[in-house]
Amino acid sequence: MELASIGGTARGGVCRLALTDLDRRARDLVRCWLEQAGCAVRVDAIGNLFARRVGLDSSLPAVATGSHIDSQPTGGKFDGAYGVLAGLEVIRTLNDYRIETRAPVELCVWTNEEGSRFVPVMMGSGVYGGAFTLDHALSASDHDGVTVRQALNAIGYAGQAPAAVCDGAEAFGAYFEAHIEQGPVLEAAGAVIGVVTAALGQRWYDVTVTGQEAHAGPTPMELRRDALQATLRLVQAVDRIAREEAPHGRGTVGCMNVFPNSRNTIPGRVAFSVDLRHVDDAKLARMDEALHIAAGLLHHPGSIEVDLQEVVNFPATSFDASLVERVRRAAQAQNLANIDVVSGAGHDAVYTARVSPTAMIFVPCKGGISHNEIEDASPGDLEAGAQVLMQVVLETAGWQLRAR
Amino acid sequence: MELASIGGTARGGVCRLALTDLDRRARDLVRCWLEQAGCAVRVDAIGNLFARRVGLDSSLPAVATGSHIDSQPTGGKFDGAYGVLAGLEVIRTLNDYRIETRAPVELCVWTNEEGSRFVPVMMGSGVYGGAFTLDHALSASDHDGVTVRQALNAIGYAGQAPAAVCDGAEAFGAYFEAHIEQGPVLEAAGAVIGVVTAALGQRWYDVTVTGQEAHAGPTPMELRRDALQATLRLVQAVDRIAREEAPHGRGTVGCMNVFPNSRNTIPGRVAFSVDLRHVDDAKLARMDEALHIAAGLLHHPGSIEVDLQEVVNFPATSFDASLVERVRRAAQAQNLANIDVVSGAGHDAVYTARVSPTAMIFVPCKGGISHNEIEDASPGDLEAGAQVLMQVVLETAGWQLRAR
Repeated sequence: MELASIGGTARGGVCRLALTDLDRRARDLVRCWLEQAGCAVRVDAIGNLFARRVGLDSSLPAVATGSHIDSQPTGGKFDGAYGVLAGLEVIRTLNDYRIETRAPVELCVWTNEEGSRFVPVMMGSGVYGGAFTLDHALSASDHDGVTVRQALNAIGYAGQAPAAVCDGAEAFGAYFEAHIEQGPVLEAAGAVIGVVTAALGQRWYDVTVTGQEAHAGPTPMELRRDALQATLRLVQAVDRIAREEAPHGRGTVGCMNVFPNSRNTIPGRVAFSVDLRHVDDAKLARMDEALHIAAGLLHHPGSIEVDLQEVVNFPATSFDASLVERVRRAAQAQNLANIDVVSGAGHDAVYTARVSPTAMIFVPCKGGISHNEIEDASPGDLEAGAQVLMQVVLETAGWQLRAR
Repeated sequence: MELASIGGTARGGVCRLALTDLDRRARDLVRCWLEQAGCAVRVDAIGNLFARRVGLDSSLPAVATGSHIDSQPTGGKFDGAYGVLAGLEVIRTLNDYRIETRAPVELCVWTNEEGSRFVPVMMGSGVYGGAFTLDHALSASDHDGVTVRQALNAIGYAGQAPAAVCDGAEAFGAYFEAHIEQGPVLEAAGAVIGVVTAALGQRWYDVTVTGQEAHAGPTPMELRRDALQATLRLVQAVDRIAREEAPHGRGTVGCMNVFPNSRNTIPGRVAFSVDLRHVDDAKLARMDEALHIAAGLLHHPGSIEVDLQEVVNFPATSFDASLVERVRRAAQAQNLANIDVVSGAGHDAVYTARVSPTAMIFVPCKGGISHNEIEDASPGDLEAGAQVLMQVVLETAGWQLRAR
């Protein structure tokens, strides 16, 4: 709640965009807590923070956890922040119980996960995992033309450590990320822990359907080339295509603009977005094919014309099977109702998975609502997730009680 | 073409909004032409122009014709202007052939038919026919807060003559209006003359469908309350309802706005317009009922909620049967391919019909396209319409050649 007060909104949410002064204050606070917990904090060239609690064997790669503390413009208290603070609580608990781990334990605070101010999203972890270059990320600019490079300098978080594993940053022995689910599945199933086996692949498209603008009054139904009525079938196809690949298919038309958007004019053009997701790249390819077939069936040159452009193609991510199993066993060992789930959204863990064995732990959020100021989660569920995180970190790092 | 040069656009259209300085210049030009043709021009309190060519019997009510010369912002050369200039050509032809009519012939130029700058639309004829009061019309203001009263004074067209028949303006013995069809029916039928039997009634609605905004990724298909997917069925119903009342039913969703209109968010709310039209008020009432039933079927409190509000209810207009028959016979007498049609759009004639026997003559426009800078019509078709207008005016007014 103290962290949430930085950028806290009247409606109980958080507005803390990446690399703003509010982000600096949040980083300073978390950094202070981590240093008070005895960690050595370093900052890399994209502004990611890494707080290390030393292990008995400094030659072992770290067992890492973390998430992000930037938010959406109308975001909530828990998205990202929970994963960071759950990791802090693990470190404090290790201290409280005088536990020494064999491998170092490292807490990561990734830069600009949300992508609200700067794209690409999941920027810090993307550089770390090699999804794009450090230069590409540093050159991104916001609506006011401020670059990431300038913003990092302005808030004092342009660090010296290498940011990408391919440039010498340390790969982790394991990376665990605790996160609110941001969806309704756990709540619907009555589960406390989501054992995240994978993250959905995503394919995004821009579609334009063109007909003929005409007067709503004088134009009989049979002489119309109504772009909106034609579009409906394709929008319905997006829903059907996703349902045909249940349970892990998703199909969404989130954005639609009608032209000229006048009450008594038959629409001449409709532009809309399509977002298809699936955990299985082969099935996602099949959904892509079905979308192209549906678009092709609608396309009649000179009458109704359909233009379909892919704008994002992001493969599915399978998390590390043995770490996923470790999360599942930890939930079972604590008698926490758990189910296997997939992550429908992107997370920093999707990028760390490219260079380090990775798994995620989901806890429910109220009503499945996230990216919203009313985002909420129960203390009991958040504690359960932190307990599971604690157990998998201990088990993976190896541990013993410190001699008195 | 000379009139079209006032407000002419680079793309060949016309932008001559009501009561602007361009409208003044167009009025001045037409008024000059009418005075040169020997007419006495008077201006009424809403700025309508009436140009009278005297008849042999001044006690008879005038046989009137006309239309408007204001345009849409991206309008064409023919919408309205054709009816005014066809009437001017009739008057010039009467002069050329030294024809004396028994009843006076009057050319009307109605103020603000388009309604682009000031609402209500069909303002001048609406006041004339008593659809709304003179004060209501004079008090309407544009986006800059300029009222019709101020704009009329500014361009020097705030006249003294009474504007409404109920306030003492003269009712016509008959009113004929020639107009481009603004639809594709004549062209599709290969007809030159549309004998307009009626104008469609119109019922307009604002509809809002509310579901639940949620993330496109983490929300499985079966747990969604997607307002857009729900809306599709209602939009399709609008089309179906109109087709079930063929050939004179029309149903259009012209305007649609999706909220929050974000690519990876399931729409939580969709607002859209519905425009239903029919020439038969009983059938229009049946369409209204079908729309309410479709909306009711979609409405599930707490899941998908539908709000349906009627915003316009405009009854159908039947034109005067004997004048309509006169138009039909005139077309036949000149061997002009003709069909009976209904007017899908509103016209000044719809309001004159409230106080004077009225009929309309349609001629084709290219591709049925109107309210568009590329609006076009062939000289031959325009001439054919003027010939029919000449014949019905003569026949209705009574005539003889002037003694030399």
